[in-house]
Amino acid sequence: MGERRKIGDMETNFHVRSFDVHIPLDEYAALPKNPLYVILDNLRSAFNVGSIFRLCDAMRVSGLFLCGYTASPPHVKLDKTSLGTIDYVPWKKFESAADAVEHLRERGVAVWAAETASGAAAYNAVAYPSPIGLVFGNEALGVSPEVLGLCDGLVEIPLYGFKNSINVAASCAVVGFAALDSWGRLKNNL
Amino acid sequence: MGERRKIGDMETNFHVRSFDVHIPLDEYAALPKNPLYVILDNLRSAFNVGSIFRLCDAMRVSGLFLCGYTASPPHVKLDKTSLGTIDYVPWKKFESAADAVEHLRERGVAVWAAETASGAAAYNAVAYPSPIGLVFGNEALGVSPEVLGLCDGLVEIPLYGFKNSINVAASCAVVGFAALDSWGRLKNNL
Repeated sequence: MGERRKIGDMETNFHVRSFDVHIPLDEYAALPKNPLYVILDNLRSAFNVGSIFRLCDAMRVSGLFLCGYTASPPHVKLDKTSLGTIDYVPWKKFESAADAVEHLRERGVAVWAAETASGAAAYNAVAYPSPIGLVFGNEALGVSPEVLGLCDGLVEIPLYGFKNSINVAASCAVVGFAALDSWGRLKNNL
Repeated sequence: MGERRKIGDMETNFHVRSFDVHIPLDEYAALPKNPLYVILDNLRSAFNVGSIFRLCDAMRVSGLFLCGYTASPPHVKLDKTSLGTIDYVPWKKFESAADAVEHLRERGVAVWAAETASGAAAYNAVAYPSPIGLVFGNEALGVSPEVLGLCDGLVEIPLYGFKNSINVAASCAVVGFAALDSWGRLKNNL
């Protein structure tokens, strides 16, 4: 679009970038991944899982673990909301989130849960270990107590609301990008 | 739930907090709001708008501006995805996002757009003015060029993906909470 515009005190040219980078699958697969694993504990909504596939592509995670009854490919609703990212994200199914947590911990990966709970640290006030697995829970029930008990840490998003929760894909975005940020991996033009 | 668990090196008690704070509407209305306005520019998905209502409640924003053909209450899909937050969030309709931007700028509020564009600053590397309006664009088209031209600043979320975009409600969460964080407003037990 190339209009001239002001950002702060600086005149600059800008144009909106294309939404699709269109890296071929084999090239993408060879790119270094961020040391982040996302673990979904019994998500009931395939739309949320599709959104999280998209996020996991955008964060270029090392793995997305779909646990319990969390929807997994092939799945019509997932196809729709993941916008073509399923082939790009390294994903794996686990019978339970506890299995996924143990899988990572056996490989020396710290695992934290994202949950609104007393004793949780504010997500923006912590240094995230690298690599890390982050567990996100069911839309109504949150992360199961069994899985919370297996985790090395617990972070929450401080909330000001009448409702004390936000959508799970939105939580995954906030905490996931905070981890990338704490590792110094968020700069323009990656 | 009250299990004992470890967070980092510290043993602690935790229990998952209730999702509903259940503040009566009149008490909530009297609470101080964060100096953040969210402007939605022609969002096509009512589900996204519902998610953003929920987010705006969680961030306790000063206003949510629904512009152009963005879905607005009353709306069945909005009711479903906003989970009862519509009555709590101060919202307003505008014929266009340009009108909403001008409404705020006339009142001395800086307005920034969130858009993946060259010339944009990384969302995590800026100090957000207070108060601020943040514009989020259509799911496919982004923020319209006309509205971009009216904004005082432009931030983007650096993305690593095959697709160069994330869901608009996820973007709103990432950038909105980053603004609250930059103002020092994100601590546990708000």
